[in-house]
Amino acid sequence: MKHNFGAGPCILPQEVFKQASYGVLDFNDTGLSILEISHRAPEFVAVMDEAIALVKELLNVPAGYSVIFLQGGASLQFAMLAYNLLPEGKKASYINTGVWSTKAIEEARLFGEIDVIASSKDKNFSYIPKDYTVAADSTYLHFTSNNTIFGTEFHTFPDAKNHLVCDMSSDIFSKEINVADFDLIYAGAQKNIGPAGATLVIVKDEILGKTGRAIPSMLDYQKQISAESMYNTPPVFSVYVSMLNLRWLKAKGGVDAIEKENIAKAKSLYTEIDRNPLFKGTTAVEDRSMMSVCFVMENPELEKPFLKYAEEKGCIGIKGHRSVGGFRASLYNALPITSVHVLVEAMQEFQEKN
Amino acid sequence: MKHNFGAGPCILPQEVFKQASYGVLDFNDTGLSILEISHRAPEFVAVMDEAIALVKELLNVPAGYSVIFLQGGASLQFAMLAYNLLPEGKKASYINTGVWSTKAIEEARLFGEIDVIASSKDKNFSYIPKDYTVAADSTYLHFTSNNTIFGTEFHTFPDAKNHLVCDMSSDIFSKEINVADFDLIYAGAQKNIGPAGATLVIVKDEILGKTGRAIPSMLDYQKQISAESMYNTPPVFSVYVSMLNLRWLKAKGGVDAIEKENIAKAKSLYTEIDRNPLFKGTTAVEDRSMMSVCFVMENPELEKPFLKYAEEKGCIGIKGHRSVGGFRASLYNALPITSVHVLVEAMQEFQEKN
Repeated sequence: MKHNFGAGPCILPQEVFKQASYGVLDFNDTGLSILEISHRAPEFVAVMDEAIALVKELLNVPAGYSVIFLQGGASLQFAMLAYNLLPEGKKASYINTGVWSTKAIEEARLFGEIDVIASSKDKNFSYIPKDYTVAADSTYLHFTSNNTIFGTEFHTFPDAKNHLVCDMSSDIFSKEINVADFDLIYAGAQKNIGPAGATLVIVKDEILGKTGRAIPSMLDYQKQISAESMYNTPPVFSVYVSMLNLRWLKAKGGVDAIEKENIAKAKSLYTEIDRNPLFKGTTAVEDRSMMSVCFVMENPELEKPFLKYAEEKGCIGIKGHRSVGGFRASLYNALPITSVHVLVEAMQEFQEKN
Repeated sequence: MKHNFGAGPCILPQEVFKQASYGVLDFNDTGLSILEISHRAPEFVAVMDEAIALVKELLNVPAGYSVIFLQGGASLQFAMLAYNLLPEGKKASYINTGVWSTKAIEEARLFGEIDVIASSKDKNFSYIPKDYTVAADSTYLHFTSNNTIFGTEFHTFPDAKNHLVCDMSSDIFSKEINVADFDLIYAGAQKNIGPAGATLVIVKDEILGKTGRAIPSMLDYQKQISAESMYNTPPVFSVYVSMLNLRWLKAKGGVDAIEKENIAKAKSLYTEIDRNPLFKGTTAVEDRSMMSVCFVMENPELEKPFLKYAEEKGCIGIKGHRSVGGFRASLYNALPITSVHVLVEAMQEFQEKN
């Protein structure tokens, strides 16, 4: 039995893997693979429609917002959102909380003036900045809600008087949010949505079409919305499995229910990190991520032996990113709490032995 | 038994579906799904490396060219190639042979002056223009090697004195080509490569980095090459299945062997179209596509009944695009010649009954 704490592409529910595997052989009893049907076939249009409807239902997306599935991951969104939202000569505000925010800032700079109004770089991105002012003439405020590499998460979102744009790649669908607080939410699929290769965008319709820029069709939110996520051939399989996974989430009781599980999972692990004298967290306690739990050992020489010990117990993917070192346990929606218990027990046993 | 003549996403070999289905449950005996492993894991890096190596081997890609897998399909390439190749204020030449060429032209116009040096629009794109001159100051010459909607194909490529750029989405790997004749070849995966969601680009390294443009990272060929197709999370599953499919092609004897099969398949169907008084081809005979066989009926009132008759024989996906009407049988690599024989028999039987 493997316990997959990998940062992504990451664990999805076992029943979703089974359904996806079957669909590769025979999709919906058509006698055809999901990989060989036309994206214009009614059977696949129904999949896309259901995926979008599930996003709207599970996140309670209000009227006036569009939901689209694109390609290219959050990294393409870094440029695409600025292309679509930032008029020539205007500026936008960004909060820098790590590697992904930094990349978002770099890409947006190709399209206008980017004002980094707050950053936690001074302490290796180990906290979420709380003290900042958004200039009145800023077009939007961009932030990264969860920072997979550094293990911090916004538990309170920035004030939304200025239009809020969020890279929610690693914590969307993990907890309840109020979509109406945002102008734009985007997320690579490969954490809580589905397999790599699809990108979810939720956008307030009224903010679009105001830059005066000529935008390549594939990068134009309005064209993608008009084409109902089928401007060209969509990433059929990734959308299909995302739909299956969102069905699973709905059957689990939705975001409200999974949030309770996620809180229990994170609490279990952080409690052990704080209790066990061998381990310590790397971030400000109030900014600890529920999805990406980063921790190190008081004695760095024990890190390799513990990694090996945990792997022997089936806990894989817990090696920390080189920027932080130590360990990172990703607790995405599909990771059962029993896997967290196995890791916690490994930490306890390792303490007894050392 | 279904015979899948669909235009795409399209048929792949049954054994590839079986391997892909198994990989969704247990990839390479890791006990993990291909969907839940990190793209940085050695097991997936090996998949990407093998996919790229197979492209190079099967197409005999010479030194000085890079092979990368991207996202966004050919439609994103329409803009991306101009972004990367066309300096501000310079011009490029395009041959317009149908819907895809027309879109490529529209997207490139955002980046420079586009000179449409030849077009077959005058006759509903039913032929390949052969009489044109490329201006000496043109940066590159773009064409679409196979036109899925209109059923024409370049059997002789344009003169390459000017840098040649080709959308080879629907006939790459169907016949031998000389990569050295091209500066850039691109192709959406979902015909002869693999499932939708991946895009193959083969580019001559020395043409890059010469526009002076600041290019968003995800759209920058040089950054994607440096990152070995992993600038961000790649479309893991689409690349995996593409690798499996290219392995299948290699085991079949490679492009040379499949070309012989493709010639036999196309000959069988065109022979029947020409013989059977009920049917007629829609394109100039010398420009007929080996991949996308378009034909109509002398009596249009028989088209619905024939479509139904063919579907009863298991022939699916043969309804023509609305721009041409009638029928379109796509004869991609994975379609067995036995499927073509079934369609030809259906045409013969239908003739006897009418």
